Amino acid sequence: MGASYSLCSHSSTLSTHTLLHSHPKATAFSHIRQSGLPNPSFKLNPTNQIFQTHLRIMAQPSQVLPLQGGQVEVGETQEGNGTRPLLDFHGIDQELVEKIVYDALVWSSLHGLVVGDKSVQRSGKVPGVGMVHAPFALLPMPFPESHWKQACELAPIFNELVDRVSLDAKFLQDSLSRTKKSDAFTSGLLDIHSKMQEINKKEDIRLGLHRSDYMLDEQTKLLLQIEMNTISCSFPGLGCLVSDLHRSLLNHYGEFLGLDSKRVPNNPAASQFVEALAKAWTEYNNPRAVVMFVVQADERNMYDQHWLSALLKEIHNVSTLRKTLAEIDTEGELLPDGTLVVGGQAIAVVYFRAGYTPNDYPSESVSKSYFPATQILILF
Amino acid sequence: MGASYSLCSHSSTLSTHTLLHSHPKATAFSHIRQSGLPNPSFKLNPTNQIFQTHLRIMAQPSQVLPLQGGQVEVGETQEGNGTRPLLDFHGIDQELVEKIVYDALVWSSLHGLVVGDKSVQRSGKVPGVGMVHAPFALLPMPFPESHWKQACELAPIFNELVDRVSLDAKFLQDSLSRTKKSDAFTSGLLDIHSKMQEINKKEDIRLGLHRSDYMLDEQTKLLLQIEMNTISCSFPGLGCLVSDLHRSLLNHYGEFLGLDSKRVPNNPAASQFVEALAKAWTEYNNPRAVVMFVVQADERNMYDQHWLSALLKEIHNVSTLRKTLAEIDTEGELLPDGTLVVGGQAIAVVYFRAGYTPNDYPSESVSKSYFPATQILILF
Repeated sequence: MGASYSLCSHSSTLSTHTLLHSHPKATAFSHIRQSGLPNPSFKLNPTNQIFQTHLRIMAQPSQVLPLQGGQVEVGETQEGNGTRPLLDFHGIDQELVEKIVYDALVWSSLHGLVVGDKSVQRSGKVPGVGMVHAPFALLPMPFPESHWKQACELAPIFNELVDRVSLDAKFLQDSLSRTKKSDAFTSGLLDIHSKMQEINKKEDIRLGLHRSDYMLDEQTKLLLQIEMNTISCSFPGLGCLVSDLHRSLLNHYGEFLGLDSKRVPNNPAASQFVEALAKAWTEYNNPRAVVMFVVQADERNMYDQHWLSALLKEIHNVSTLRKTLAEIDTEGELLPDGTLVVGGQAIAVVYFRAGYTPNDYPSESVSKSYFPATQILILF
Repeated sequence: MGASYSLCSHSSTLSTHTLLHSHPKATAFSHIRQSGLPNPSFKLNPTNQIFQTHLRIMAQPSQVLPLQGGQVEVGETQEGNGTRPLLDFHGIDQELVEKIVYDALVWSSLHGLVVGDKSVQRSGKVPGVGMVHAPFALLPMPFPESHWKQACELAPIFNELVDRVSLDAKFLQDSLSRTKKSDAFTSGLLDIHSKMQEINKKEDIRLGLHRSDYMLDEQTKLLLQIEMNTISCSFPGLGCLVSDLHRSLLNHYGEFLGLDSKRVPNNPAASQFVEALAKAWTEYNNPRAVVMFVVQADERNMYDQHWLSALLKEIHNVSTLRKTLAEIDTEGELLPDGTLVVGGQAIAVVYFRAGYTPNDYPSESVSKSYFPATQILILF
């Protein structure tokens, strides 16, 4: 059975004429995907290992109970492929595991580590209904500290790479020319890009919120990058909470498990995402303007996004507007000076948690071309 | 249409030989029941009025949306009588109300102001599944500060009254003699009480966690006591959160509404309940002993209770055990020295969130008589 870890590092970069890469942040956030590694959690707690938090993307987290045979069923994956990865808890008293599971479920419920339940129809539309704990790994996984540091050090370099690529029109068009031929969606985006080149439209201020996913290859012991997300990077909100959850569980049970809560690294992904958004908002220099979250109409992971809105308001007093592309199409207005106004509110920053799939575009309407024509910051 | 407010004051008293009523606390927690008073929230914000939080006990809080005609449907009462009290929001822009409702729902979800949804079967048994925001009043109600203070001042007096009554065996038996004849449940409790008198069993240390409910009578302008709860006082956990929710909403929208968040009084009910439980636990003087929450098998209001457990652990490092009376019957053991052991753990304090109805007693078994024979603190 193959075994691998993955680690996701959220980071952001804000670039202006003078501020290019002055804010490259390699956040300590991570989560690890684990596929069937036997007994990973309880072997050791060596000083060169740290514990990484783990948040699985799954649809039926409520299947976490009951416990059988010392193993915790962690439910189906969100993709619904029926795979049921098992965390092996051999060596831990089953009664103790049940206690930890119970406490973890309570902690999640009290601290907003929740998602919409797909079995409740409105759970992706209306907040506060049909909630279920987010899926999570019960305990953090050991991860080599050196690889962790490596990923953190790589973050600003990848940020700069993405920023430079975004400015290199020829490279972008050339690299994606074959994709353009076979994929109508990419083709549409490249057409918008070409139009912007034609009118010589350039953004002086750019902000990227990225998430880089890595896996630790067991054979080569190398950290391998799986993908780098440059739009709609999910789980900065809930991921931080998983770190907090693990810290809380180890505070209570660490002694029994031989795990030290202090080895769970700090995970400031949410506050750093929010700091970057606030910095971009400040650059826009209109105190009445808001940050617009472009969202999908049905979003069961809305609480991950709501955490960012809540922190943005609480820490930086910046307000958020949530709109689908269809709503922006109906309610949006482009003023002659390039200001985008939606529902009567000037938009300083657009944060995309949608728009990366053709399904998010309801029609061939102006919504597709609103953003590049405006003066606002666009976060792809 | 009649109009009345009610206010609930949580308080606790811990009595020992030397400590009698040294901890009578009138907590600032309150919630108000309101029945059809026209436009109570937005008349004024005079200096002699404070705002009271409001947590309705309802079954279908998800009915809080949509908004129609400037009124918010706050759903059915928990009793399921189909009454749908309406809060009148005339004078507030409907779009603003919708925004506030949305923010309130998000806030509740992120901050653990949740209950189990009755439409989800397991929501009263397993934490973290089938959650829905707790029902709440969208905004605090004005309440005369003088009456508020009066209720707070009354709390320690009522606490002392209850404590004295609990020690006056003859008064108790005489007062309830007629009830004893017609009510088998009360009769059973009085029989246990009589047995304890016969063996001269007395508790040197007593702790009461009480909740006193008041209504403000609109005709007489008097504060009228509705009832005093001396067992299973609910909502110290969630009630505090409603105060926080209202404060948060007024911080954002108070200016538009003419309401000042600073006028929402501090509500330390949860931390004071927990402080009292910790104090009682300390009196038992066994660092390995735990506080046992006696709960109902199906409890959709479990998060209100979980907040107390969480705070008890977090603030005082005291652990909690949750058991139904049936489970105690099976797993409990009474040691010769009077120590109650449940699931291998010595019980220092019993906190009853069940046991006030015949349904909670599964049989005529020893569970009924466990507690009075032990040396532990009993919280009725």
